[in-house]
Amino acid sequence: MKARVTVTLKNGILDPQGKAIEGALKSLGVDGIASVRQGKVFDIEVAGADKAKAEAALKEAADKLLANTVIENYRVEIV
Amino acid sequence: MKARVTVTLKNGILDPQGKAIEGALKSLGVDGIASVRQGKVFDIEVAGADKAKAEAALKEAADKLLANTVIENYRVEIV
Repeated sequence: MKARVTVTLKNGILDPQGKAIEGALKSLGVDGIASVRQGKVFDIEVAGADKAKAEAALKEAADKLLANTVIENYRVEIV
Repeated sequence: MKARVTVTLKNGILDPQGKAIEGALKSLGVDGIASVRQGKVFDIEVAGADKAKAEAALKEAADKLLANTVIENYRVEIV
């Protein structure tokens, strides 16, 4: 079963990487970009066909390793 | 206008970071994860309300800066 975990910074958390990208896009002459925030995406292949079990494993993975839940939100999707 | 650009490695491109995550999840006792591939996600606020113009700017940004199109695919979504 394929799944995707998307990890993004919480609102209010500064994102210097996003700011750097904004600056770089301006330097490159790409117009019309107001703001950028960068996150991470994990494409995960889950063993087995039990959807509830897969979601539980993915949440455990996100809580333990993929996201820092102090400053990041995550979203689990089975695709 | 809000948009999301998702950048993922092309099939066949090795992902050592994903492999490291697989190993770490096994060490942490998270079962049922067969494979992991990591990508990037950019949450972008586009100035103006013209959807076609926004998509063009986002594609330009992805081609020029956000993705290395030799080894990565990207997808632009207006959300």
